[in-house]
Amino acid sequence: MRRYLLMAITLAAVLVLVSLAAAADPLPSWNEGQTKRAIVDFVQRVTAEGGADFVPPAERIAVFDNDGTLWVEKPMYVQLAFALDRVKALAPQHPEWKDKQPFKAALAGDLKTVAAGGEHALLELIMATHAGMTTDEFARVVTDWLASAKHPRFNRPYTDLVYQPMLELLTYLRANGFKTYIISGGGIEFMRPWTEKVYGIPPEQVVGSSIKTRFELKEGKPVLMRLPEINFIDDKAGKPVGIHMHIGRRPIAAFGNSDGDLQMLQWTTAGSGARFGLIVHHTDSEREWAYDRQSHVGRLDKALEAARKNGWTIADMMKDWKIIFPFQLK
Amino acid sequence: MRRYLLMAITLAAVLVLVSLAAAADPLPSWNEGQTKRAIVDFVQRVTAEGGADFVPPAERIAVFDNDGTLWVEKPMYVQLAFALDRVKALAPQHPEWKDKQPFKAALAGDLKTVAAGGEHALLELIMATHAGMTTDEFARVVTDWLASAKHPRFNRPYTDLVYQPMLELLTYLRANGFKTYIISGGGIEFMRPWTEKVYGIPPEQVVGSSIKTRFELKEGKPVLMRLPEINFIDDKAGKPVGIHMHIGRRPIAAFGNSDGDLQMLQWTTAGSGARFGLIVHHTDSEREWAYDRQSHVGRLDKALEAARKNGWTIADMMKDWKIIFPFQLK
Repeated sequence: MRRYLLMAITLAAVLVLVSLAAAADPLPSWNEGQTKRAIVDFVQRVTAEGGADFVPPAERIAVFDNDGTLWVEKPMYVQLAFALDRVKALAPQHPEWKDKQPFKAALAGDLKTVAAGGEHALLELIMATHAGMTTDEFARVVTDWLASAKHPRFNRPYTDLVYQPMLELLTYLRANGFKTYIISGGGIEFMRPWTEKVYGIPPEQVVGSSIKTRFELKEGKPVLMRLPEINFIDDKAGKPVGIHMHIGRRPIAAFGNSDGDLQMLQWTTAGSGARFGLIVHHTDSEREWAYDRQSHVGRLDKALEAARKNGWTIADMMKDWKIIFPFQLK
Repeated sequence: MRRYLLMAITLAAVLVLVSLAAAADPLPSWNEGQTKRAIVDFVQRVTAEGGADFVPPAERIAVFDNDGTLWVEKPMYVQLAFALDRVKALAPQHPEWKDKQPFKAALAGDLKTVAAGGEHALLELIMATHAGMTTDEFARVVTDWLASAKHPRFNRPYTDLVYQPMLELLTYLRANGFKTYIISGGGIEFMRPWTEKVYGIPPEQVVGSSIKTRFELKEGKPVLMRLPEINFIDDKAGKPVGIHMHIGRRPIAAFGNSDGDLQMLQWTTAGSGARFGLIVHHTDSEREWAYDRQSHVGRLDKALEAARKNGWTIADMMKDWKIIFPFQLK
């Protein structure tokens, strides 16, 4: 008899725990308020079977910008820090770089001169550091760099500097049957080696800018060589193009933080049925950075205007986020 | 008492049915023999937890060519039949086509003259029929055409002319945790409107050739316009490039039928661990077609050589397949 009583008590305890877990806040790092309510309301509407806004799981596609939306983009894009470090690492094999711009400036850490060279200079740095090797070799270089490089302000690996509230949002959406994608202006192959571990987003759900690759037999072994030639720029008007090319259906939710995400949000929210657009507004100069219209990196001007006009949700980093990074979790 | 007996009998019957279903042959349209054994053996090896060849579900990527591997490609690629029909449908808006090649020949059904124009002539036909509209409009045109067009030999919709043994293979792989992709030389947007319904393969798992698209606001509404410019040719050495671009990991199994699939099979089978390559060999002139080295459509020469050399499995349509098409199921 006693044994049955024990079993009954155990069972009751399990049931209580299960229901507590189900009722637990899926977005604990988001402060209560309009922004959080808008997110939860949208998810509840599109997942309510029989409801007017119900969306079948296969069509629950959510797209996220990466730089400034999922991880830090200040003081410079992480991929630019990578390129500059690679220039230094490769310099011994390129003695000519000592006297040649933009390499000379890059080696001296003189970002102003690099920037003065404009797009052409940047492209030269990117091609010199991103091409001329196989896809497997490049993935290894990225992985090795991320394992050792540190962010200059936070003195932590860059992959520590992802936004905890956004990680919770990714998990929350996936728990509700969404497929989460990254749609970034950054390099697709720069992201794929680590997005699964850091964001739970597998390589096939990462879309980004790319250089061309060529299939070759190298000593009888098939490889894909990375060529110094632009293939696709997944930014601004390129984002809907990249989305369509890779996914082939229109997302129902889009998350960005800059004018580079404007067309992605337009494309996503112009579809029929319930749609959700959100802009992460960097308003927290103490815990992270505060920037929008005047910033070179992650400029947010037209998209902020459009957000207000179209009723997209604006996440105010200072007001809406309890903490910024996972390492601040207690 | 009688009620309990009835319940017990029902339960027993259910259990028997469930175990029968579990033991049922997942590939009933494949004859017993070496080919079928090779497929089942591979799947069992990569799914056996703790086994030497175990592959985690996330890495169980299987890639399939489409034309000649999943559906018929004779007497001509289905997409070419589509383009020719579209030329006829659009001719009233293009009176100049009456005197202009390759349109004149296409309108007269004179395929020899079209073919004599080579790649350039084909490209002209494709661009005239595939570009100059939005992605949504093109999807609708494809869907409408497939609903009415009939295959000249079988007098059935083209989507009836998919290979039943390959449908079973797709289902069998997915039931074993595989993600199934199409990697086709055909147009990505020509396939996406129907692959989910016909093959169970969603748009985001379809890779193919493409023309460029441009994001535009058309009367304030965002659209993607299809441009008369090649973006990517997903054939031969392009297939591993397309695979890497879209999936970002190397498949562990690849299925093709022609020299256009050679590099895809090389790329797939050169990876470490258990790998599987299969060539569908069209050997059945009665039930379908028999062709390989001499065929213009779906030429199988180098890939057949490579299959023998590398130990890839060759599915002999006549010997290995009990039936060819789903409508032959009893």
